[in-house]
Amino acid sequence: MSFTRVDPIGRAEAAEAVLQAKRIKGLTWEQIAQELGRSKVWTAAALLGQHTISAEQASTVGRLLRLEDVVVQALQLPPVRGAGVVDTSEPVVYRLEEVVQVYGRAVADLIREEFGDGIMSAIDFEMDVERVEDPKGDRVVITLNGKYLPYREF
Amino acid sequence: MSFTRVDPIGRAEAAEAVLQAKRIKGLTWEQIAQELGRSKVWTAAALLGQHTISAEQASTVGRLLRLEDVVVQALQLPPVRGAGVVDTSEPVVYRLEEVVQVYGRAVADLIREEFGDGIMSAIDFEMDVERVEDPKGDRVVITLNGKYLPYREF
Amino acid sequence: MSFTRVDPIGRAEAAEAVLQAKRIKGLTWEQIAQELGRSKVWTAAALLGQHTISAEQASTVGRLLRLEDVVVQALQLPPVRGAGVVDTSEPVVYRLEEVVQVYGRAVADLIREEFGDGIMSAIDFEMDVERVEDPKGDRVVITLNGKYLPYREF
Amino acid sequence: MSFTRVDPIGRAEAAEAVLQAKRIKGLTWEQIAQELGRSKVWTAAALLGQHTISAEQASTVGRLLRLEDVVVQALQLPPVRGAGVVDTSEPVVYRLEEVVQVYGRAVADLIREEFGDGIMSAIDFEMDVERVEDPKGDRVVITLNGKYLPYREF
Amino acid sequence: MSFTRVDPIGRAEAAEAVLQAKRIKGLTWEQIAQELGRSKVWTAAALLGQHTISAEQASTVGRLLRLEDVVVQALQLPPVRGAGVVDTSEPVVYRLEEVVQVYGRAVADLIREEFGDGIMSAIDFEMDVERVEDPKGDRVVITLNGKYLPYREF
Amino acid sequence: MSFTRVDPIGRAEAAEAVLQAKRIKGLTWEQIAQELGRSKVWTAAALLGQHTISAEQASTVGRLLRLEDVVVQALQLPPVRGAGVVDTSEPVVYRLEEVVQVYGRAVADLIREEFGDGIMSAIDFEMDVERVEDPKGDRVVITLNGKYLPYREF
Amino acid sequence: MSFTRVDPIGRAEAAEAVLQAKRIKGLTWEQIAQELGRSKVWTAAALLGQHTISAEQASTVGRLLRLEDVVVQALQLPPVRGAGVVDTSEPVVYRLEEVVQVYGRAVADLIREEFGDGIMSAIDFEMDVERVEDPKGDRVVITLNGKYLPYREF
Amino acid sequence: MSFTRVDPIGRAEAAEAVLQAKRIKGLTWEQIAQELGRSKVWTAAALLGQHTISAEQASTVGRLLRLEDVVVQALQLPPVRGAGVVDTSEPVVYRLEEVVQVYGRAVADLIREEFGDGIMSAIDFEMDVERVEDPKGDRVVITLNGKYLPYREF
Amino acid sequence: MSFTRVDPIGRAEAAEAVLQAKRIKGLTWEQIAQELGRSKVWTAAALLGQHTISAEQASTVGRLLRLEDVVVQALQLPPVRGAGVVDTSEPVVYRLEEVVQVYGRAVADLIREEFGDGIMSAIDFEMDVERVEDPKGDRVVITLNGKYLPYREF
Amino acid sequence: MSFTRVDPIGRAEAAEAVLQAKRIKGLTWEQIAQELGRSKVWTAAALLGQHTISAEQASTVGRLLRLEDVVVQALQLPPVRGAGVVDTSEPVVYRLEEVVQVYGRAVADLIREEFGDGIMSAIDFEMDVERVEDPKGDRVVITLNGKYLPYREF
Repeated sequence: MSFTRVDPIGRAEAAEAVLQAKRIKGLTWEQIAQELGRSKVWTAAALLGQHTISAEQASTVGRLLRLEDVVVQALQLPPVRGAGVVDTSEPVVYRLEEVVQVYGRAVADLIREEFGDGIMSAIDFEMDVERVEDPKGDRVVITLNGKYLPYREF
Repeated sequence: MSFTRVDPIGRAEAAEAVLQAKRIKGLTWEQIAQELGRSKVWTAAALLGQHTISAEQASTVGRLLRLEDVVVQALQLPPVRGAGVVDTSEPVVYRLEEVVQVYGRAVADLIREEFGDGIMSAIDFEMDVERVEDPKGDRVVITLNGKYLPYREF
Repeated sequence: MSFTRVDPIGRAEAAEAVLQAKRIKGLTWEQIAQELGRSKVWTAAALLGQHTISAEQASTVGRLLRLEDVVVQALQLPPVRGAGVVDTSEPVVYRLEEVVQVYGRAVADLIREEFGDGIMSAIDFEMDVERVEDPKGDRVVITLNGKYLPYREF
Repeated sequence: MSFTRVDPIGRAEAAEAVLQAKRIKGLTWEQIAQELGRSKVWTAAALLGQHTISAEQASTVGRLLRLEDVVVQALQLPPVRGAGVVDTSEPVVYRLEEVVQVYGRAVADLIREEFGDGIMSAIDFEMDVERVEDPKGDRVVITLNGKYLPYREF
Repeated sequence: MSFTRVDPIGRAEAAEAVLQAKRIKGLTWEQIAQELGRSKVWTAAALLGQHTISAEQASTVGRLLRLEDVVVQALQLPPVRGAGVVDTSEPVVYRLEEVVQVYGRAVADLIREEFGDGIMSAIDFEMDVERVEDPKGDRVVITLNGKYLPYREF
Repeated sequence: MSFTRVDPIGRAEAAEAVLQAKRIKGLTWEQIAQELGRSKVWTAAALLGQHTISAEQASTVGRLLRLEDVVVQALQLPPVRGAGVVDTSEPVVYRLEEVVQVYGRAVADLIREEFGDGIMSAIDFEMDVERVEDPKGDRVVITLNGKYLPYREF
Repeated sequence: MSFTRVDPIGRAEAAEAVLQAKRIKGLTWEQIAQELGRSKVWTAAALLGQHTISAEQASTVGRLLRLEDVVVQALQLPPVRGAGVVDTSEPVVYRLEEVVQVYGRAVADLIREEFGDGIMSAIDFEMDVERVEDPKGDRVVITLNGKYLPYREF
Repeated sequence: MSFTRVDPIGRAEAAEAVLQAKRIKGLTWEQIAQELGRSKVWTAAALLGQHTISAEQASTVGRLLRLEDVVVQALQLPPVRGAGVVDTSEPVVYRLEEVVQVYGRAVADLIREEFGDGIMSAIDFEMDVERVEDPKGDRVVITLNGKYLPYREF
Repeated sequence: MSFTRVDPIGRAEAAEAVLQAKRIKGLTWEQIAQELGRSKVWTAAALLGQHTISAEQASTVGRLLRLEDVVVQALQLPPVRGAGVVDTSEPVVYRLEEVVQVYGRAVADLIREEFGDGIMSAIDFEMDVERVEDPKGDRVVITLNGKYLPYREF
Repeated sequence: MSFTRVDPIGRAEAAEAVLQAKRIKGLTWEQIAQELGRSKVWTAAALLGQHTISAEQASTVGRLLRLEDVVVQALQLPPVRGAGVVDTSEPVVYRLEEVVQVYGRAVADLIREEFGDGIMSAIDFEMDVERVEDPKGDRVVITLNGKYLPYREF
């Protein structure tokens, strides 16, 4: 029987393998993203375990990073999303949390004012992270772009 | 003696008074912001209690919204920031939290790759929220813009 | 000046006033819902503070339940949603929580299998609660109906 | 002596083995359910570790998925239920949580109104998940069906 | 209009009024229970806010304890159940918690062995608390009695 | 030197070994209890790791269940008690928790009324779980029996 | 009717009244304790709301501290014990917590070694706090004295 | 190169080895303490991982208990203190916690009264646990002895 | 009788009164500190409720800020210390928390290396906050200065 | 293929290896810091996993401490920062936490008074820990030095 009882590696281990291979190959997320025809944010998030990766995408990445077959297989497992996969006290991530604390209620009220009673979707959503040069010190510019979804009256 | 022992109202009560007056006057955050010469996001956040408001700014808002003097005074109190002032399970705010869960580690890694070991400041920071028309349904576009700060080696 | 500094009541107090008036009038949610042309679940959720109520809807309810004007005004305030507004250890609610514990992962996997990588929207969503007669003891049947939203590849 | 001290695998590992075999065989939960003469929701929940599986059911599944004997044995262990077995911040599951936040109190009040002081059982309970076609986007329809249990006066 | 906006008192306040009146009248739970034709445990739990009390029961208690009409009304409000209404670190209650810690898994296993996969209902349930004399020190004997409910296979 | 550095197994592993052997042998807790001259609740709790087991008791159990010597040794280790050893959201255990929520304050007040200021001991304590036949569905009856301990005035 | 609906004050307010009167009168806990014929630790704990106070004890304290009758009545209410009534991060209390962290397991093991499987009762218990002079700096000496209670085998 | 990359065992494992060897040798904490010239409480706490142990002390214990050299080495590692190393719901430890709940505020107030604004040190601290015979049941007597430290005014 | 039952204000309210009076008078913490002959950090902490204030100190502050007598009295109440009195997610305070996260273990190890097994006292402690000019942007310099306390071997 | 799938060790394991080698070599943080041309606080924090270490720095440390190559490689991995990496109840660290509790609000207010609305950066930051001799007992002096960052008005 061909059944293998112990699943060799999961998405978390695949992500570590990708990070290590990327370091060895000296590739950037941008370079991997171009190979996939996707943005660098989607690519990084997907390879770190947060998005579904098709068989074709997995083997493109596998060839580029010379990943073992077991890693290429594991990249095709379902994503593992949830609060447990990011440490919100990690300093970079915490600044995003602090932005939500300081501006969250203002954002909610501005959306209500401009769109009505609804939300910005985090599913029909895309995101970008860019470096913007500035003589007083370069800036990180992050763009969130999600479809407005109105609450349904029934 | 002129001392008043009980502080009449704080920033939270001033924010409620602003929201109510804004509703009665039928003004938008954008309109109030133009009067102050500030952006609508800063204006909403500040009047909701998250930023310092100068005496001049407070009386501009007071005249525009016809606020009582006690509210104009309270707007000049120090801001009350922290995790307690926003409910992260409010549906609009939760989508921002979910974005941090799904993309947080990717953002951290992209900043490390492009800038080095450091953070996007949430202090030397500005933010925008815009409506972008789209035939498949309009979109909420939120831009975060913060100075890159490198860790110091000492 | 006509400005009233203290907001008389909020959504929570308006909900209590509705419950009390409903009890005194001997009306059911179904009867109030018919007056509004909405379902009983939306009506109950909305009047308990979870949905936006238009001026027209508020005055329909106000006339039906003979609510004071201040309550009719308060019903038009923005909803106050979030984890804080329901006690998940209340026995009826806890059974819903237990259903999520026992069947949550199965639901997620069945959606992935049948639809792909995405979610059931809780915004473009409607819900019903019905009594179904059964000789072994009547049954509560709850129907959740939400739009499938696929994750976006970008 | 025939005693084996280390229990080879538990329900969690058996669930992973089922998922992997199901992927390799290209079977759906519906197909497995038909073989068992049970619904797809019960079948998925049971094989993911949430319900008791009889010896006969376990060997039916074992033959269908070509599971190793140790997995077939492990499927017959008692289920491991509780809050720890589902991550409520996983996006699909979180929408169910949000439904409980927004509609939980309304559901409790509608049950009290229509049935009296009691609960919908989560034990004498069944559940369905269906895809409903819709020109504006297909919909996920989930039906919860539990016996009404009145509190006993003693 | 006869509408009273502020609900005079809730179940919690009614419970305090009952406790105080009971103290003044020098009555025991047993005596109140006999008047109601119910057990002392149900009576104490109900008057402390955990069970529905009918109009007739409320006025029986009202006459016995000479409660004000507003209290008699409040006793007829829906019960307020949930984890928030009992402090599990109160020493008497904590011993019950400790019993659950030490014997909980044994109880679950004994029920599985003797009944099958199911639970002891906490809804179709009754309970007793008795003093049993003992020369080495009297004992508290608490009896829990709930219907066995099997999980449904569907 | 006879010293063995790695403790082969602890109480948790010994409990799993007992459960597995009991399943293989087809014995009930009642049967094991009779062999030990103890009640089935004490026996189950003790073998699941919550009570001290003497060398003689351990070898009686060892012979009956044909346990390996390392398990017989491990059963004699000190018990590992505390909140961490039971998952209070496991459905059977949660009903006990819900009983504490609904009846905890009533129990505390009934003990105060009948005994004075003190507690029911959870140490000088015994417990029973019985099946009681009932034409409307058999019932689980659990009896808690603990010594009353008065607070000491000093 | 003589019924008073609003309970004037509870144990918490009575405790504050005692502290204030004690400050005004310049009395120590020792002096109040002597009047009651109890120790200073019991007296302080009882008057701060942690122990039952008899009518006679309450009026002795009332006369000594010239407490209002409503306070004397409130002192006779049941104690309000539990984790909520002490802030364990208050610096004096935290040192006791730290002692439990550093020495808790050692104490448990020493009791098991010297007494057997059981506990030091916190109910049949008394306690003392003394100042001991020391040339290197005076010392706080706290003595805990509780009855040993063995677990019961049944 | 003599470098060993994997640290063989830590303080936690060393503590388990000590407990096991102590059990095999049939020694008490008192006997080990006499060998070290320290008290039994310090000795138990230190060997359980809460205090620094010198090379000389470690080899004394090693000879007495016939510990392997790797354990003797590990005993000399820094202690691992903190809230994580004791389970405060373990029944013996919980009684200490309950004592803090019931008497914590009284202790703080008695220290303030007798010493001034300061604390009992948990560092310049010693502790004893003794058995005191009592015809009504022997008692556990625990003495805490810490230097009084006044807050500094600067 | 001269007894006043309701304590007019506590330390928290006194702190608010001080902040308001300080704002009206336009005084700095430094100026108040000079009047008291104490440092600005101690003065700010003490007047915000964290330290004992003598009768003489309270009336010096009262005269300077023209505080009402009830505030001067309240300043002499015991301090209210503990984790509840500071919001650690307030942005300034959070940076201190982040410093503890990043450097806490390094500080502990450096103290162990340089002093031995012990702590920096937070009681026999003083602290300073200074502005240091810097052409690249002025700096906040905070100095913590606490007595080293070694653990006692007993 | 040269790809190594399992990352040999991470920053946590590298930190343990450094601590062990440092112990064996008898080197202080100061001595290692001098070799790197950095301060002892930065050096300790970096080698304990909190800062980025360059290839050159890693090999300097590797030579000095005779670390295996795999450790030298692991030191060059990204730092792992966040709340999870320090136990705030460890006694040395807890004193820092207590300082934040007692002085946090005073520090925030002093910065607001002296600088304006902003923070002390924890990124553009350095820190020192020194021993200061004192006849009454030597003192630990910790200096925090961070750039002042003003909130941006936009």
